[in-house]
Amino acid sequence: MALTLNQLNAASEAEAAQMLDGLYEHSPWIAQAALAQRPFKSLGHLKQVMATIVREAGLDRQLALIRAHPELAGKAMVSKTLTAESTNEQGKAGLTDCTPEEFARIQKLNADYNAKFGFPFILAVRGPRGVGLNRHQIIETFARRLGNHPDFERAEALRNIHRIVEIRLNDKFGFEPVLGNRAWDWQEQLARHSDPGYAEKGQLTVTYLTDAHRAAAKQIVADMQECGFDEVSVDAVGNVVGVYRGTADKTLLTGSHFDTVRNGGKYDGRLGIFTPMACVRELSRAGKRLPFGIEVVGFAEEEGQRYKATFLGSGALTGHFDPAWLDQKDADGVTMREAMRNAGLPATLEAINALKRDASKYLGFIEVHIEQGPVLNELDLPLGIVTSINGGRRFQCEVVGMASHAGTTPMDRRRDAAVAVAELALYVEQRASKDGDSVGTIGMLQVPNGSINVVPGRCLFSLDLRAPTDPQRDRMTDDVLAKLKEICERRGLHHTVEETMRAAAAPSAPQWQQRWERAVDALGVPLYRMPSGAGHDAMKLHEVMPQAMLFVRGENAGISHNPLESSTSDDIDLGVRAFQQLLDHLAKEQQ
Amino acid sequence: MALTLNQLNAASEAEAAQMLDGLYEHSPWIAQAALAQRPFKSLGHLKQVMATIVREAGLDRQLALIRAHPELAGKAMVSKTLTAESTNEQGKAGLTDCTPEEFARIQKLNADYNAKFGFPFILAVRGPRGVGLNRHQIIETFARRLGNHPDFERAEALRNIHRIVEIRLNDKFGFEPVLGNRAWDWQEQLARHSDPGYAEKGQLTVTYLTDAHRAAAKQIVADMQECGFDEVSVDAVGNVVGVYRGTADKTLLTGSHFDTVRNGGKYDGRLGIFTPMACVRELSRAGKRLPFGIEVVGFAEEEGQRYKATFLGSGALTGHFDPAWLDQKDADGVTMREAMRNAGLPATLEAINALKRDASKYLGFIEVHIEQGPVLNELDLPLGIVTSINGGRRFQCEVVGMASHAGTTPMDRRRDAAVAVAELALYVEQRASKDGDSVGTIGMLQVPNGSINVVPGRCLFSLDLRAPTDPQRDRMTDDVLAKLKEICERRGLHHTVEETMRAAAAPSAPQWQQRWERAVDALGVPLYRMPSGAGHDAMKLHEVMPQAMLFVRGENAGISHNPLESSTSDDIDLGVRAFQQLLDHLAKEQQ
Repeated sequence: MALTLNQLNAASEAEAAQMLDGLYEHSPWIAQAALAQRPFKSLGHLKQVMATIVREAGLDRQLALIRAHPELAGKAMVSKTLTAESTNEQGKAGLTDCTPEEFARIQKLNADYNAKFGFPFILAVRGPRGVGLNRHQIIETFARRLGNHPDFERAEALRNIHRIVEIRLNDKFGFEPVLGNRAWDWQEQLARHSDPGYAEKGQLTVTYLTDAHRAAAKQIVADMQECGFDEVSVDAVGNVVGVYRGTADKTLLTGSHFDTVRNGGKYDGRLGIFTPMACVRELSRAGKRLPFGIEVVGFAEEEGQRYKATFLGSGALTGHFDPAWLDQKDADGVTMREAMRNAGLPATLEAINALKRDASKYLGFIEVHIEQGPVLNELDLPLGIVTSINGGRRFQCEVVGMASHAGTTPMDRRRDAAVAVAELALYVEQRASKDGDSVGTIGMLQVPNGSINVVPGRCLFSLDLRAPTDPQRDRMTDDVLAKLKEICERRGLHHTVEETMRAAAAPSAPQWQQRWERAVDALGVPLYRMPSGAGHDAMKLHEVMPQAMLFVRGENAGISHNPLESSTSDDIDLGVRAFQQLLDHLAKEQQ
Repeated sequence: MALTLNQLNAASEAEAAQMLDGLYEHSPWIAQAALAQRPFKSLGHLKQVMATIVREAGLDRQLALIRAHPELAGKAMVSKTLTAESTNEQGKAGLTDCTPEEFARIQKLNADYNAKFGFPFILAVRGPRGVGLNRHQIIETFARRLGNHPDFERAEALRNIHRIVEIRLNDKFGFEPVLGNRAWDWQEQLARHSDPGYAEKGQLTVTYLTDAHRAAAKQIVADMQECGFDEVSVDAVGNVVGVYRGTADKTLLTGSHFDTVRNGGKYDGRLGIFTPMACVRELSRAGKRLPFGIEVVGFAEEEGQRYKATFLGSGALTGHFDPAWLDQKDADGVTMREAMRNAGLPATLEAINALKRDASKYLGFIEVHIEQGPVLNELDLPLGIVTSINGGRRFQCEVVGMASHAGTTPMDRRRDAAVAVAELALYVEQRASKDGDSVGTIGMLQVPNGSINVVPGRCLFSLDLRAPTDPQRDRMTDDVLAKLKEICERRGLHHTVEETMRAAAAPSAPQWQQRWERAVDALGVPLYRMPSGAGHDAMKLHEVMPQAMLFVRGENAGISHNPLESSTSDDIDLGVRAFQQLLDHLAKEQQ
């Protein structure tokens, strides 16, 4: 018989402690401390409170918590320190069926890991969907995490502990993240389509209008139909468009892209299609209509991989389709026009231009996206409210000094190009840190043909500067370029700077941002406001209508554009429920 | 009828000014100001005084001096602004016989140069030997200097003006740097021998025991014999050894190496053989014997190019020949033993070990070498007295952080490997500058596979740290490595450091350094003490006997290990005469 949150909120301290017994391995103090913050609005709220208690408990108690966990076992050998619960969890992951080689590998990893970190390897072996990782995934994760920095790995261990607790808590309360699982499974299914050359290696790559791309579109169409959308179609640029009609004329626009980078992740973009689909599915099943329509668009092209036509899908809706794109060729010499015709699209500007939306018919645009960054993961927060999509500028730069003998050129007679760039790198770091939410990066850095005994005569580097508003971005850029000039003049060096990209910032519409905030707050999840460092389809829609985004935490330090991109169905569930909350509130507003 | 220094020193101010008229183009104020410092010890002294006056005259007067010069002319066209003197000098360089293409090229270069620097291109077209550069050399130099930094090029223009004045002064006073010319010509002759693959391209490469190397040895033997050495031989490792006997038993050891790096310069090493040879030639012609013998060794191997056996030649004299070297193979699979046999050498350890000198029979070791650095060139000084050959340590290092999205990773959540190295680079610069004569260099620097939008997760770099004494070198090394550790700990990064080289410092023997100082002072040339940043044969001899070195200025910012390595026969002449001075004083000491 599962517990309920009401029972927990109403119980005496002793009873409540008993209810939460066994969550954190041999560490009942965490649940006990959490009880002081009753009543809990939601299970998510309780999870959050406990994670915060661990976060604030200090290093010693955190290490004690980690060390309270058993080592990962292999084969039939089950460590004596394994609790029944742990054994059960590890059993679900199939670790009791290891081959002798796998067993030996795990023992070696355990030894190396312990030697490096001084605590046992902890992995939430039931994985992001709660159904269990396979042995191969577990061993691969183990080997990968062995390479982490100790501080990071300690935090990663705690995050895995929180995830283990989350699953235990779900079990205790008989909670299943049904909506999150629905979206998770859609994403898993969609990821089976991948371009040739990648599919064979188990990698996910879906570029514009390839066979895999069209198969993906077809699946989204079918899923939308199954959800109960009233109209589902593929438009003239290949976007999948589903409309769930409302009781009034206006429509809420939402969606994201389903194309991927090469060897990318399963959630980037796609989460923003499946989240509203899950909501519409519930509305449809309940036979419920809102006082506005919901239009979910799966954008066909956002990543600019096959053609240099980034944001083609959302751009078509805002009237920003560049006619020159039609003649652009892919790596095999196939023009976009040919690719469109091959996909059964009209490939005419007339048809494409007709996709432009009349903004007056829309309430606005909202987009859910996996964070693609480390912030929520590091802060133990499942959701983040986007304040602005940062604007950015990029530069390729070169500093030229004079190469000279490292032994015979005194320090005060050098024209060292690399030290000048070093000085700039520290300035960029300090200057970007000073601004709220600005970032500045020197990602490429090289002394070409450098020798150990030669003072660098040249240094090549890139600059990537981003900020939540264009004026903030430009002030930072001006300061950085002025600093570069000053450094080079002082040091007697030449420099060249070439701007290679400039993107405008897209601050969230305050009203829409507040709607997300209200929705998240209703779930008992802490509000966390953050800029988006990466670009999104919402940037394009921003040009014609108000927009705001919601971020869902990514696992593995939020890595994206990478097969390690991951999110739990629990977090996705919170995202779907936040979307539902927003729809509810919006419905009340519109009535 | 040539002037004499005595006449100049004795003349009235007006007469003296008349004597020096026309030295600096349209700028008589320089010679006039110099006269206040009469009497001059030597022409070199006068040249030095004038160069110092220009150095201290300030930017405006320097620019006026530079702009007083005519543009480089081509073909039959002679600019109206050319003085008779300039026309004559340019004529000597054959510029009046330009092809139309060369003429057009020069006009283009003149225009580009003026546009970039705002003053005319000035080149001492009579060149380092005073006999004139050819058209090809002039045009090549013009094109190269067009790439210089404006500050550097302004200084280079002044240096060329000083060189023009030096030649004019030599003409006025009927002075010819006979000894310098002798050594210069020997070097030019020796440079005709070059290894296959380089000789064809006009490049100088002479590696251990190749045909070119043996031809070079043969020429040195012949030149030594012509000089009047009493014994000349090639020893068991291929060193050329010439002995000029003295009236007493003890011997002064001197010399340097005649092997080169690939595509190297003509003066590196060789100057230290030919300088004492020129002295012995004069002694022999005068039938003069000193109270000590002079043993000049042309070391066969210093650069470690064909075999990794750096300092093999001088090491054989100190008993440091590594027997394992004999089995080492070159790039073609030829062992050193085979190469020795092929060269007619015994290739036995017995013969090689017999080369070890009994230090008690020697007064000490002195070595003349081209500076291989920018200091003397920049300070307008022809000679430098070496205080120590710097000791050095080298490291290959790696910093590992965490690669992450440049847009989505906030500044305070980064583990940027490159910024950490940037911080270290600035520390190295500051730390080395703080010590007298230390140098520290990060010569190799790279973010492997860096992307413009990825925070660097790795950064590879090299460290080269040198100082005049081993304790100073080690204190600096300790500080730098401690700083690296501190930076990485603070920033949450890993790092690895591998020491790849450690060389001991070789401070000059005070008495021998003083002998060089006295010798240079006697020539009226300012004393300038400096460390040697590069390694030299004297480092090996340092292990068994007192040593001290003299540096001769290199042109072209002192570049070495490069075909642009250059020195004037006037500077070389001063080096030979300093050596003569040292021999004279030493003879008096020994009597």
